[in-house]
Amino acid sequence: MKNTQIKGTSLLIERVLVNGTLQDIFVDETGVITSIGVGIARTFRGEAETCIDGAGDLALSGLVNTHTHAAMTLLRGFADDMPLQDWLTQKIWPLEAHLTGEDVYWGTKLACLEMIRSGTVAFNDMYFFMDEAARAVDEMGLCAVLAYGFLDLFSEEKREAECRATERLVQSIHGMKNPRIKAAVGPHAMYTVSPEGLRWVSEFAAEKEIGIHVHLSETEKEVTDAVSQWQKRPVKILDECGILTPRTVAAHCCWLDGDECSLLAKRGVHISHNPASNMKLATGRAMPYHWLKEAGASVTLGTDGCASNNNLDLFEEMKIASLLQKHSWNSQTLLPAGEALAMATSAGAKALGFGRGVIAPGEPANLILVDSHAVCNTPLHHAASNLVYSCSGNAVKTTICQGRVLMKDRVVTGEEEIVAGAAKAAASLVKRAREE
Amino acid sequence: MKNTQIKGTSLLIERVLVNGTLQDIFVDETGVITSIGVGIARTFRGEAETCIDGAGDLALSGLVNTHTHAAMTLLRGFADDMPLQDWLTQKIWPLEAHLTGEDVYWGTKLACLEMIRSGTVAFNDMYFFMDEAARAVDEMGLCAVLAYGFLDLFSEEKREAECRATERLVQSIHGMKNPRIKAAVGPHAMYTVSPEGLRWVSEFAAEKEIGIHVHLSETEKEVTDAVSQWQKRPVKILDECGILTPRTVAAHCCWLDGDECSLLAKRGVHISHNPASNMKLATGRAMPYHWLKEAGASVTLGTDGCASNNNLDLFEEMKIASLLQKHSWNSQTLLPAGEALAMATSAGAKALGFGRGVIAPGEPANLILVDSHAVCNTPLHHAASNLVYSCSGNAVKTTICQGRVLMKDRVVTGEEEIVAGAAKAAASLVKRAREE
Repeated sequence: MKNTQIKGTSLLIERVLVNGTLQDIFVDETGVITSIGVGIARTFRGEAETCIDGAGDLALSGLVNTHTHAAMTLLRGFADDMPLQDWLTQKIWPLEAHLTGEDVYWGTKLACLEMIRSGTVAFNDMYFFMDEAARAVDEMGLCAVLAYGFLDLFSEEKREAECRATERLVQSIHGMKNPRIKAAVGPHAMYTVSPEGLRWVSEFAAEKEIGIHVHLSETEKEVTDAVSQWQKRPVKILDECGILTPRTVAAHCCWLDGDECSLLAKRGVHISHNPASNMKLATGRAMPYHWLKEAGASVTLGTDGCASNNNLDLFEEMKIASLLQKHSWNSQTLLPAGEALAMATSAGAKALGFGRGVIAPGEPANLILVDSHAVCNTPLHHAASNLVYSCSGNAVKTTICQGRVLMKDRVVTGEEEIVAGAAKAAASLVKRAREE
Repeated sequence: MKNTQIKGTSLLIERVLVNGTLQDIFVDETGVITSIGVGIARTFRGEAETCIDGAGDLALSGLVNTHTHAAMTLLRGFADDMPLQDWLTQKIWPLEAHLTGEDVYWGTKLACLEMIRSGTVAFNDMYFFMDEAARAVDEMGLCAVLAYGFLDLFSEEKREAECRATERLVQSIHGMKNPRIKAAVGPHAMYTVSPEGLRWVSEFAAEKEIGIHVHLSETEKEVTDAVSQWQKRPVKILDECGILTPRTVAAHCCWLDGDECSLLAKRGVHISHNPASNMKLATGRAMPYHWLKEAGASVTLGTDGCASNNNLDLFEEMKIASLLQKHSWNSQTLLPAGEALAMATSAGAKALGFGRGVIAPGEPANLILVDSHAVCNTPLHHAASNLVYSCSGNAVKTTICQGRVLMKDRVVTGEEEIVAGAAKAAASLVKRAREE
């Protein structure tokens, strides 16, 4: 079932605001922006197979979510407001134990729908049954980097199985030959994967030239346990196992110290800031954005899974990121709107290798059009400020991924079927877990 | 120009989820809920002048915003990410100095539109040119409590003028005889109003039996200055001037100590928690919800003005409130979804005297219908969790205030005219300020 809307055709977008100027954008049939300018529509109107009247809306590089567990949409609202250990052991893990490939397919379809509707064009996912996730992404037309969550829990036997599962997924994704979908490795964290496991993963990723997706220093306990057990902080442990590379995305990074920020920057690691999840789970400390910025690190934005957020709206996440940084580090000027927007666009796109995340000739046409007449954009004194502090993802009218129009005027083909299918899968999952 | 949609007619709402059960609601022509139950539509279908098919959506008591400066929508995004004093003295105050009554009218119209679209049915406003705000509210059909912002800056001459302005507004609002619009007094704060001014305000409010709207302990400086100048903390100063009553709403309340929480609870004061504004302006501390709750205080929710938020979406505010409390006070269980929802509904309605903020016979029909098939409500494991953590105000399909349908299926009559009028007023305001 391929989404019929997702065909490669040339595309002309007329009358959109790009950096404050009303311009036209032409995208060729390979999904690449070839021309941008005032009044260029005249030149391309005959040639373009599809035309969109932007009606003065804001054109923005599509948002990039660098840390998700997409299929956890099925767990949205299943359990909240509980102590972390009870939440995990009594609610989340028992439900996840009953997950099937079909569940992951429907959960990922729902996640893709939600992302398309809120202007996200690419995401970095780590979970299980990832070939089912790949099938969902393929149908929905988004860009994604998909990793199998590798947890050996320090057991040699389990490590072997995780290595094989990782290899299988990479082979399966490469076999799809879909340029929008990339494989990555997903070593869960330094407290769930043995040093041997981390080393294997790092070597395998280097050999295949693919990304690494890892959790890092989310909680203070992770740091204090590492220091007490290994006499080293988590960043050092990951570095010694070869995990810190320019192909790596490290999620959370709340409890970094200054030296760790410097080393992450030096290694070219991309940080994924996950403010809503961190606040909801009371990790106790905000990612030290000011230190990372000073060190020159690449900082991107992610929502985490829907069990701990509980949505995938990166517009909301940009606002919460900026607010949390200001609040936590006591600065009215920290993480201004323009920087939050760059985190969610250019920094994210570069981290996942889907272009530079800007609207420019030669770039993949990962574009969104945001309603400039919506209440959240009225008045329009400063676009970046409205986008970050005032709008939610619902202000996005049109979402385009690599030249394919995935949503037009807030209509996504097949939406009702996806909502119904995901709701049914979630109900069945809970029923199976309760009957056990 | 009265909104023609805002007529008093009897109303039948069929098939909505009220506390998890599919029911019908009948509202009489005075805007009061008279009947709720499974299958009661049969009884009332002949009698009702208007019928709405709820299609299984969630019916919720309309949200109540207890701290706004509504017309500041015109300043949305005008200046952000600046040090507080520069922001106020170089940007906000110079622009406000050029505000006219017409600006306040258009700004308040835009605010009302935004509130209707995000499910807010009542708000507590403090600003200038408030008879123009009253005209806007009257046309838009919301409930509001309107106060003139009283600042005497410790000058006797200015105090006299502020007293007269306060009296005039109260007389003017009472003259409107609109049961949806109430007058209040608005002593700005203990650091901008003299003790004599505070006492006059408190006596005048008691005589007229109207509300009091005040800022309290937003910044640490307010507290340390009070202690250094008066050897008393702000709550004590307000109490000695008679400001703390069960008719009082005190906004912000970030820097309360335990004794102040107890005294506010004892006096029956309603607290307005404004988490987004507090985070954006880096007040440095979250309102101590756990102490206020322990003391039995009434805690409500507000957005503050659009210069420091930058929207009026109480759904977003519920999420940020719950996340901020968990983060700041290091607790995964603090301010759970149900309590955040109660802050924004029942606590707010009681604070402003617009019913009990619940869906029950005898209550004013301040109702919203939230799309139960939206992605943010899929799956629907727990409605309260989805409403607080997953949905934004855009999930609201229908907004009803005192039985009048202000939005149906996301259509508000006259929306385009309001957006255009407010955009024009904002542009003209900035132009006037720049030309000076």
